[in-house]
Amino acid sequence: MNRPAEPGPRRTAPPALIESLRALLGERFSTAQAVREHHGRDESHFDAPPPDAVAFPRSTEEVAGIVERCAAHATPIIAFGAGTSVEGHVLAVQGGIAVDLSQMNRIVAVRAEDLDATVEAGVTREQLNEYLRDTGLFFPLDPGANATLGGMAATRASGTNAVRYGTMRENVLALTAVLADAQVVRTGTRARKSSAGYDLTRLLVGSEGTLAIITEVTLRLHPQPEALSAAVCAFPSVGEAVQTVIQTIQTGVPVARCELLDATTIRGINAYSKLALREAPHLFFEFHGSPASVAEQAESVQAIAAEHGGMGFEWSATPEDRSRLWKARHDAYFACVALRPGCRVLSTDVCVPISQLARCIAETEVEVKTAPFPIMLVGHVGDGNFHLGMNIDPNDPREQALAETINRRMVERAIAMDGTCTGEHGIGLGKMDFLEREHASDISVMRTLKRALDPNNLLNPGKMLRLGP
Amino acid sequence: MNRPAEPGPRRTAPPALIESLRALLGERFSTAQAVREHHGRDESHFDAPPPDAVAFPRSTEEVAGIVERCAAHATPIIAFGAGTSVEGHVLAVQGGIAVDLSQMNRIVAVRAEDLDATVEAGVTREQLNEYLRDTGLFFPLDPGANATLGGMAATRASGTNAVRYGTMRENVLALTAVLADAQVVRTGTRARKSSAGYDLTRLLVGSEGTLAIITEVTLRLHPQPEALSAAVCAFPSVGEAVQTVIQTIQTGVPVARCELLDATTIRGINAYSKLALREAPHLFFEFHGSPASVAEQAESVQAIAAEHGGMGFEWSATPEDRSRLWKARHDAYFACVALRPGCRVLSTDVCVPISQLARCIAETEVEVKTAPFPIMLVGHVGDGNFHLGMNIDPNDPREQALAETINRRMVERAIAMDGTCTGEHGIGLGKMDFLEREHASDISVMRTLKRALDPNNLLNPGKMLRLGP
Repeated sequence: MNRPAEPGPRRTAPPALIESLRALLGERFSTAQAVREHHGRDESHFDAPPPDAVAFPRSTEEVAGIVERCAAHATPIIAFGAGTSVEGHVLAVQGGIAVDLSQMNRIVAVRAEDLDATVEAGVTREQLNEYLRDTGLFFPLDPGANATLGGMAATRASGTNAVRYGTMRENVLALTAVLADAQVVRTGTRARKSSAGYDLTRLLVGSEGTLAIITEVTLRLHPQPEALSAAVCAFPSVGEAVQTVIQTIQTGVPVARCELLDATTIRGINAYSKLALREAPHLFFEFHGSPASVAEQAESVQAIAAEHGGMGFEWSATPEDRSRLWKARHDAYFACVALRPGCRVLSTDVCVPISQLARCIAETEVEVKTAPFPIMLVGHVGDGNFHLGMNIDPNDPREQALAETINRRMVERAIAMDGTCTGEHGIGLGKMDFLEREHASDISVMRTLKRALDPNNLLNPGKMLRLGP
Repeated sequence: MNRPAEPGPRRTAPPALIESLRALLGERFSTAQAVREHHGRDESHFDAPPPDAVAFPRSTEEVAGIVERCAAHATPIIAFGAGTSVEGHVLAVQGGIAVDLSQMNRIVAVRAEDLDATVEAGVTREQLNEYLRDTGLFFPLDPGANATLGGMAATRASGTNAVRYGTMRENVLALTAVLADAQVVRTGTRARKSSAGYDLTRLLVGSEGTLAIITEVTLRLHPQPEALSAAVCAFPSVGEAVQTVIQTIQTGVPVARCELLDATTIRGINAYSKLALREAPHLFFEFHGSPASVAEQAESVQAIAAEHGGMGFEWSATPEDRSRLWKARHDAYFACVALRPGCRVLSTDVCVPISQLARCIAETEVEVKTAPFPIMLVGHVGDGNFHLGMNIDPNDPREQALAETINRRMVERAIAMDGTCTGEHGIGLGKMDFLEREHASDISVMRTLKRALDPNNLLNPGKMLRLGP
C-alpha cells in the first residue's frame, strides 16, 4: 500500500481526442492497459490512476500537434521521460495523455569546438556520454539514474558532479519547448552568456512540465579531464566528515565529487557491492585536472581530512578501482532495498548552506538512529545537499507515517536554516506543502506565471503548485 | 546631439503623488532640476527628458511604499543604481519617479563559512570587495564600471572574470524585490542548489527593472586565489589571437580572465595609460589557483599562443605590474575618449559561440577599418563576447548613422551565428529591435510575463519590450 496521490478533478480524455491522436500518431499512440500502467508509476511512493493513453511523438511538431488536440479537448498533458522521478512528477493524477518522449532520442548536433551539444529530450545522459566518448568532451551531470536530458532539465537535476560543474540550471544553454497553446518556442542561444531579455531558459528548467513540454535541449559540454583520481576516507563521525568538506570547499579545492555515506549506507554497499569498507561514515572524493593538479588536490584534501580524524585515506588511481567505487555509490539505492527485502524506499533530499550542514545532519541522525527501519544517509555534501533513503514496509501504515514525519521534520529544519526542501528531486506531488512553506513570500508569483502561461491548467496539473479555486 | 529616445506616452507624476512621496521620504525626495537631470542620463547616447522627481529610499519597506504610491497614481517607476548603463536603461522616457538605491548601501551579512553575502542593492562591487579584503573571499564579477550590485543583477552583468566565475546569472543566490503591486518577495534561498519551484531569482536577474525593483541581493563569494599571475602576448592578427583563445578554452585551462584588445585599443591605452605595448592585437590573461597550478596554466597558454604566432609572451607576476595592466584594460573606455577629444563613445557588445568568434570579429573588422572615426575592439573572448567602442562626433549625424549601421550589422551577424545581440550590456532602449529579432519565437512569452506581473506597465516602461497596443 502506497500513499494515495492527492485527488484532483479528473479530466478524462474524450473519445474524439483519442481518435484524433490515433489519426496523428498511428501505432505510436496506445490505450493498452500495460502501456498505460507503465506510464502510471515512477520511483516515488505514490499511487495514482494511470493516464488515459500514451503518445510517443518523434518530433517537436508532433508534440505541438498533441498539445493542440489535448487543449481543444481540455485534457491534461503529462510529459514522461525515463520515469525515474522520486516525487510523483509523471503521475496522471487528473487523467489525461502521457507524452512519452523516449522516441525523441536523436543527438541533433555536437559542436566540439563550442563545447556544446543539442539533443532531443528523450536522449539519456548515458547515451550522450557514450556518443561523446571519442570527442574528448563529456556531460558531467550525473543524478544516478539514467534519466533523459529533457527530464533532467525539467526537474533541474544535478547529482554527484554538481559541486564542480553545476546543475542543469548552469548547464542548459537553450531549449525548444511546446507551450500550453501549442506554440513552439526556442529560448536562449548558443552564446555562453547573454543579457538579452528575460531568462526563459532558466524559467523552464525546473518547471516540471507545468509550463511547457521541453522537446530539445542545448547543453554545455566539458573537456574530459586529463587526469582523474578518486579517494575514500573513513571518519569517526558524520560531523567530522562534514567539517572536512566545509574546509575543503572554503579552501577552494575544486573537487569534482564529494560524497558522504553514513555507516548504514556503507554496511549496505559492502554487502551489495562486495566491498570491504570500514563500517563508519565515509567521504568519497573525485579529483579532475592535470596530473599535477589532481595530485595537489588529493594532498590538500588528505591533509584536511587528517585534521578531522580521517582514517585510512585511500587513493583509487586505477580506472577499475574508481569505477567500482562509483558504481557502489550509485548502487546505494539498490543496496538500501537489499537491506530489507520486500520493502520500499522512500527517498527525500534537502539542501542547506554548508555552515548548517553538520547541524542539519546531526539533528536528522537522531531520528534516523531511533527509527525501527533502516535509513541510509548519503549526500552530495560539497553542495550542502543530502538524502535519506528510508526502507519501509509498504504494508505498515505506521512505518509510512513515521517516514513522512522524519521527512517533514528534516525539511522544516532545512528551511529554517535558509536551505531548501529539495536540492535536486523536485516538488512533484510529494513536496507541495513544503514549497508553500519555503516560498511563502513568492509562491503567489509562481501561481501568477503558471496561470499566465497555462490558463486552463493543462500541463502536468496537480503538480508543484496548488492553484486554488 | 545624441539619439533621441523612442517616444512613449508620457505619464507625469501628479502633484498629489509628489506630495505623498515627500511626506514619506522628507528630504530624501527631490524635484530639484539638478537632481532630476543627474538621474536623466547614463553612459548611453540617448537623450530623454529627466524623471519628474527622485526618491532615495533606505529600506525595502520604503521602496514598497514608493511603489504603492506610484501605482495608485499610475506613474512609472525607474530603478536607478550607479547610472552606468550604456543602453539607456535608467532614462525616464515616459516620465515618472526615479528610485535611486544608492542610500541602500548596507552590507547586511557576510557568511564566510558559506561563501556568500547579502547586500542592499546600492552596494557597489568595489565597496563589497573592500569590505571582504580580510576575509580571504572576494566577489569576482567585474564589468569595469563600479556599478551597484542591484544594477548588476538587474542587467545580468558579467565582465572580465566571467569565463572562470560566471555571470550574475550564476552568482546570485537569492533576491529581495518589490513587485509592481508593492508586494515584497524573497526569491531563492541560501542553498547552493534547489529544485523547489520556478526559478524566480533567474527571472528577475536580467529583467532590467521591468518586473520588480531589486532591493537586496545574496551573492556567491569565492576564495581569494592562493596565487595570481597575469600575462600579455601580442599576435600578428586578431584571428590568430582568437584561435589561441579557442584552443585554451577547449583544452580546459581554467583561465580567470582572457581579454582581447585590438591594435587601435593598444594605441589608445599606450597613450592614455603610459604603456609601451607593441601596436598589435593582444591577449591579456590572468590565472588563479595554487602557485603550481598558476604556473602550469600559464605554460599551457604560452605553448598554445606560440603555435598561433604569439610574440613576446610576458608574465606580470608582481601585483604592481598586474594592477597596472588591468587598470589599463579598464581605462580602455577613457583611452577611447581621449583618442578624439570632444567626441562621444557609442558602446555595443555581442556574444557568439566561440567557433564563430574569429569570423564574427573578422567580418566586423572590415567595417571597423574603413570607418572614418576610431573604433576600439575589445573582448571578453573566453566567453565569445566582444565590444566596439565607436568614437563619434556627436554633432555629425552621418557618423551617428554609420555607427548605428556598424552596430546593427554586427548584431545581425551575431544572431545569424546563434549568438546574442548583447552579452552583458542589456537591451534597455538601444536593442529592443534586436531582441525582437533574436527572440522571434519567444518574445511573446516575455510580453505575457511582463503583462502578468506588471499589468499597468509601471516598472521601467518603454524599456526592453515593446508591449504594443
